[in-house]
Amino acid sequence: MTPDNSVQLIPVPGIPLIKPGDDLAEIITQQLAAANLTLQDGDVVALAQKIVSKNEGRLVNLRQVVASERAHQIAPLADKDPRHVQVILDESREVIWVSPGIFVVETHHGFVCANAGVDRSNIEQPGAEEGDIWLALLPKDPNQSAATLKTRFKELTGANIAVLINDTHGRPFRMGGVGVALGTAGLVALVDERGERDMFGYTLQNTVVATGDELAGAASLLMGQAAEATPVVLIRGMRYRQPKQPDTGAADLVRPPNKDVFRYPANRKEF
Amino acid sequence: MTPDNSVQLIPVPGIPLIKPGDDLAEIITQQLAAANLTLQDGDVVALAQKIVSKNEGRLVNLRQVVASERAHQIAPLADKDPRHVQVILDESREVIWVSPGIFVVETHHGFVCANAGVDRSNIEQPGAEEGDIWLALLPKDPNQSAATLKTRFKELTGANIAVLINDTHGRPFRMGGVGVALGTAGLVALVDERGERDMFGYTLQNTVVATGDELAGAASLLMGQAAEATPVVLIRGMRYRQPKQPDTGAADLVRPPNKDVFRYPANRKEF
Repeated sequence: MTPDNSVQLIPVPGIPLIKPGDDLAEIITQQLAAANLTLQDGDVVALAQKIVSKNEGRLVNLRQVVASERAHQIAPLADKDPRHVQVILDESREVIWVSPGIFVVETHHGFVCANAGVDRSNIEQPGAEEGDIWLALLPKDPNQSAATLKTRFKELTGANIAVLINDTHGRPFRMGGVGVALGTAGLVALVDERGERDMFGYTLQNTVVATGDELAGAASLLMGQAAEATPVVLIRGMRYRQPKQPDTGAADLVRPPNKDVFRYPANRKEF
Repeated sequence: MTPDNSVQLIPVPGIPLIKPGDDLAEIITQQLAAANLTLQDGDVVALAQKIVSKNEGRLVNLRQVVASERAHQIAPLADKDPRHVQVILDESREVIWVSPGIFVVETHHGFVCANAGVDRSNIEQPGAEEGDIWLALLPKDPNQSAATLKTRFKELTGANIAVLINDTHGRPFRMGGVGVALGTAGLVALVDERGERDMFGYTLQNTVVATGDELAGAASLLMGQAAEATPVVLIRGMRYRQPKQPDTGAADLVRPPNKDVFRYPANRKEF
């Protein structure tokens, strides 16, 4: 027996390989139906970034990339193919860190992450010509991607749901990657509880919670990355807040560099 | 209908205020029974750090604290009571950052977090004498706390479960706090999938996942911080890995400073 106020994390079975232009919301709705599941108001559909990127055709064939001089400079430091470095640079507004195996940038979205989220794994090789190496880029506007999917789910099912696009990022201070929300639609990703009182009447301080990232982490627990990958997870029963319009989505989770004491050495003071 | 391979996050209702020396595992087991729930092998019981700290008597009355000269120096920079600063310093091995409202340290456990996790909210005031201000410190050894609870749950219920003690930490690059695992017992907190192959036979890289923190984030979604606080969440159906013995718990999630390019300015290179 599961209590009424519990939250379910439900892996959506049988999602096929996604191709550019597929009706992703329809495919997910069909797979849910095959599992005797119907979307309900308040559900959250979490999608791995990779299938959204593939659906949006955000794929680059390394064979067609010409590396710049800067990419050639960085490549031996990052221990990467110069064309791969070029693809990452094209997705970035700033290089944060380069060392063998670690290439951290700020993407055009403002995400500080390894390799601008550009990834080679789990990409089938369309055409499969000799020398083809396909990379998947992050969606260009993940909040817009989430909003478009939300609208399409509403058309298909009538349900008012939230959509979350997640990825896995490393972080300072802690080992291992965790799920993060690249894009959301239909939920408040950053919940500000400051000013509320706790059980003893003491006003809470510093209680701004990254609900979007916690949902992404929860979904990520079921997604896996290897052969048994499950790119879509249904989150049911979560009492999230409705966003004001326009919905700023997961952009609220990006910390502006000038509010980040860890971002630049110049911001740091030793005591 | 909930599919068999789903994960449930179940808030445990009716947990009373916890006092030093209470049999915490027994209280939780009783409240689960009142909700018609029985612990099963493989369950994860997630506990908010605050109730574990209170249970272990990790409470300090500010009135009994004498601030050092260093605490007096830092207090105006941090905009805090010098005695409060002293309590934080006592819990820390290094001060990382001080500015009004932001006091980041490395705790004796190695956690880099605000105020060494020392918190005033949700602490009842035992005795309630004029001038009493109670602070809760983090558990001294959260992995040991988790292991002790795991053993006690086994005695009470016969179930082999995992225990997770979670808190909320801020982080660089991203706005808002997220749940993190301070201590775990009975599960692999840091899962290393490197060397596994993806669906297309490509060997995965950089896929070390902080499962402990993702579980903490998932539990945190239901815990809340304000009046409706739910300090215990049962996670059911999660297929986590069993740790080798001795169980190193959530210590695996603490990044050694020498593996952290963001930790010290000296580690940084601009490109």
